[in-house]
Amino acid sequence: MVKLVALYKKPPDPEGFDRNYTQTHVPLVQKWPGLRRVEIGKVTGAIGGEPPYYLVAEMYFDDVDALKTALRSPEGRAAGENLQSFAPGLVTMLYVQVGG
Amino acid sequence: MVKLVALYKKPPDPEGFDRNYTQTHVPLVQKWPGLRRVEIGKVTGAIGGEPPYYLVAEMYFDDVDALKTALRSPEGRAAGENLQSFAPGLVTMLYVQVGG
Repeated sequence: MVKLVALYKKPPDPEGFDRNYTQTHVPLVQKWPGLRRVEIGKVTGAIGGEPPYYLVAEMYFDDVDALKTALRSPEGRAAGENLQSFAPGLVTMLYVQVGG
Repeated sequence: MVKLVALYKKPPDPEGFDRNYTQTHVPLVQKWPGLRRVEIGKVTGAIGGEPPYYLVAEMYFDDVDALKTALRSPEGRAAGENLQSFAPGLVTMLYVQVGG
């Protein structure tokens, strides 16, 4: 299993970000081909200080080929363009191999 | 559901880190009271450049009280001390609220 982990820094306008994220971005992501599961979490704190992130979203796929196919698909591009429209420069996207 | 997300930067000695992490750290974490699930993932890349992290580990609990109880328990302290012994300064720990 492979996941795309999106780490979002705190946006300048959290309310506007939340609205765009929930109402436009998540519905676009949920259309990705091969997507098995999405897990979205709000960061509520950190050990030892201010958390460096605001939101952690994880998109699960069977393997890295499925993940890359999703990102290159029209649905993947639409989600990427949408993200740039309301949250430019906020996100770090990691490819993560889960388990063996 | 709540999770503790541990983001590890790339260690100076990845092989030594992996050995300590797998052989000593994970077994200590798995003893935490109230722990529902652990998901450990190796970072294999990032969109747009070098990934800023090496490993992402997630520890799931029923709620934030259970998470905090685990961290304060003898098992939680043992895992924290173990981590400092082989990976000081590498980890960022986030409290994350999943779903509603």
